[in-house]
Amino acid sequence: MRLYVVGIGPGDNKYLSGEARAALAVADVIAGYPLYLELIKDLTAGKECFSTPMRKEKERCLFALEKAAAGKTAALVCSGDAGVYGLAAVCLELSALYPSVEIIIVPGITAALSGAAMLGSPLTNDFAVISLSDLLTPWDVIEKRLHAAASGGFVVCLYNPSSAKRGAHLAKACSIILRERGPETVCGIARRIGRDGGECRILTLAELRETSVDMFTTVFIGNSETAVINGKMVTRRGYQLGVEG
Amino acid sequence: MRLYVVGIGPGDNKYLSGEARAALAVADVIAGYPLYLELIKDLTAGKECFSTPMRKEKERCLFALEKAAAGKTAALVCSGDAGVYGLAAVCLELSALYPSVEIIIVPGITAALSGAAMLGSPLTNDFAVISLSDLLTPWDVIEKRLHAAASGGFVVCLYNPSSAKRGAHLAKACSIILRERGPETVCGIARRIGRDGGECRILTLAELRETSVDMFTTVFIGNSETAVINGKMVTRRGYQLGVEG
Repeated sequence: MRLYVVGIGPGDNKYLSGEARAALAVADVIAGYPLYLELIKDLTAGKECFSTPMRKEKERCLFALEKAAAGKTAALVCSGDAGVYGLAAVCLELSALYPSVEIIIVPGITAALSGAAMLGSPLTNDFAVISLSDLLTPWDVIEKRLHAAASGGFVVCLYNPSSAKRGAHLAKACSIILRERGPETVCGIARRIGRDGGECRILTLAELRETSVDMFTTVFIGNSETAVINGKMVTRRGYQLGVEG
Repeated sequence: MRLYVVGIGPGDNKYLSGEARAALAVADVIAGYPLYLELIKDLTAGKECFSTPMRKEKERCLFALEKAAAGKTAALVCSGDAGVYGLAAVCLELSALYPSVEIIIVPGITAALSGAAMLGSPLTNDFAVISLSDLLTPWDVIEKRLHAAASGGFVVCLYNPSSAKRGAHLAKACSIILRERGPETVCGIARRIGRDGGECRILTLAELRETSVDMFTTVFIGNSETAVINGKMVTRRGYQLGVEG
């Protein structure tokens, strides 16, 4: 049968696409991290639900694949997008063990997009997305990517900027980018996007380096085209220069 | 009054978020590129619609801002996301001329996410998004970013890979990335995502360099972690190595 890997967007029901809602509607069984199942509980009523704690993602995927192999229609929910730092890849890798299961990936609005919308439009032009979590990527690889993104002039969106174990990662990342960009570079942080207490703030790169953020925060570091306009973080493109005028 | 800048996702109604649907529902006036208005025509029935051809984006934004300033609730639709290569930034810049207008950015599923879902999960980990259009960004800046993304080991997603005027840009981009990555690097192309005739294909970087694509195509170039698994393009992360046991 089918396994839908569904990106639910940043928060509650209103961020789901029609495609995601339809996938959840046809699912007999829904698996996910407890908080994500809570966010969409109106859409899971009467369905068999299964959750595992953080760091038990593989078990969650195996559960959903087992159910699908047993003839159920299963859905595995991911916050944001199903692919970006999500579980689509894990399911596709494990699917070799379940040849009868058809896996369908349903995209969702990842935090880079929903956080950008709160702040204004920081991702108007080319950008790089980097996770500061070194649980699955060695820190030296993360530093190499921060260097490359800064030297390439990309606006940078940082996921997992902090946690109990890696409080200093954001400051380190800012120091690397400060080698290429000025301390006044426009940055933004978006916290609890699409959830109760959601908030965002614009600050300079120098200020960002001294700021502590939590694991519910997404960080945006502007480039030379990024400015503050009417209180919003905006990366300009040629249109504004009247290119097409 | 309000201007909603709304990302409608890649294709028809089913890709809109609930937030996007709600914004269109309350809008008196809806502006957009003709094709985008056609894709969501079921949601615009009975509303005043306004479209301008490509290269007249600023006029489209000014029309929507004028309507909002005149007391209407206006919506400006963008394909994919409202911010990523979209019109959110133009509206925010022009808003200085319309202090009475409140601009609300409504994010949508950009082609990097919807194209990735068709192919499998190429954007599981860090990635860079680059437009090959040199209408608004000088080509030397685009080349610098391609170099930086390749040297940083990012999976790369290319927007606007081709057009009548820039047929050779994709081949040039592949040649730059081939300096850092092998010819067998796994790549993918997704065409007419979420629309009639939608299709995707997995190929090598060497093959991609020799492939001509149209303006309705989004291109994905894998990194050393990207493989073909059961016919899908998948970029691995640590989970698959059993990191979380």
